[in-house]
Amino acid sequence: MTVSSIFPPAADKTALERGAAIMPRFDANGLVAAIAQHADTGEILMFAWMNDEALKLTLDTGIAHYFSRSRNSLWKKGETSGQLQIVTELRIDCDQDAVLIKVRPQGDGGACHVGFRSCFYRVWENGALVEREA
Amino acid sequence: MTVSSIFPPAADKTALERGAAIMPRFDANGLVAAIAQHADTGEILMFAWMNDEALKLTLDTGIAHYFSRSRNSLWKKGETSGQLQIVTELRIDCDQDAVLIKVRPQGDGGACHVGFRSCFYRVWENGALVEREA
Repeated sequence: MTVSSIFPPAADKTALERGAAIMPRFDANGLVAAIAQHADTGEILMFAWMNDEALKLTLDTGIAHYFSRSRNSLWKKGETSGQLQIVTELRIDCDQDAVLIKVRPQGDGGACHVGFRSCFYRVWENGALVEREA
Repeated sequence: MTVSSIFPPAADKTALERGAAIMPRFDANGLVAAIAQHADTGEILMFAWMNDEALKLTLDTGIAHYFSRSRNSLWKKGETSGQLQIVTELRIDCDQDAVLIKVRPQGDGGACHVGFRSCFYRVWENGALVEREA
């Protein structure tokens, strides 16, 4: 676990699981998992990561920010593609190592760099992956 | 990245992103992220991890298997709680480091050890976490 200067760690299991304070358990790389779900359709759009700064910016601005592991930097989704994600709701899981955001993608409405609406465009069927959006 | 003896790594970016073969990018701990979504309601139930064995068992049996990082062992969800998850669909994302499974939870229909239907039972409202199921 990494200690964040923005979000203090939970004092105990009760605070972690039932508390009103957001106290994410950042992993050894300082990250929590982030799942983006379409606010209107419920479709899972993407899976990414947030560091403390990205989470704080997401909460403060209402626009999804992530941490790019490949670029090792803060990532305001859509800054170049136009696929900004307006956050309508943010949830955190029981042990506070995963965040679920409900979003409305802007621009062309997509989220995936390959060109699909969702990153989960391949489904397992009869022993192979088939490209088919939900 | 960890090399799996069950699922070979993708030869290149095209195979990874557009290929019909499942070639997960297991992280340094041999894991891929796994998101469980309710097959009927679309609700996100939980976020967990799969190693290669858990993924293979999930594909082969149609019942969700994970890898428990806290217990450092294979985890057949619901084996003790009865909350088995019947998998109706499995998807993988563009860079094959995250799996999305659509499931029907058995037993009492829940997924979270705290007692809620979903692990994401807390929503961020006015600067605090509030317990409220979706």
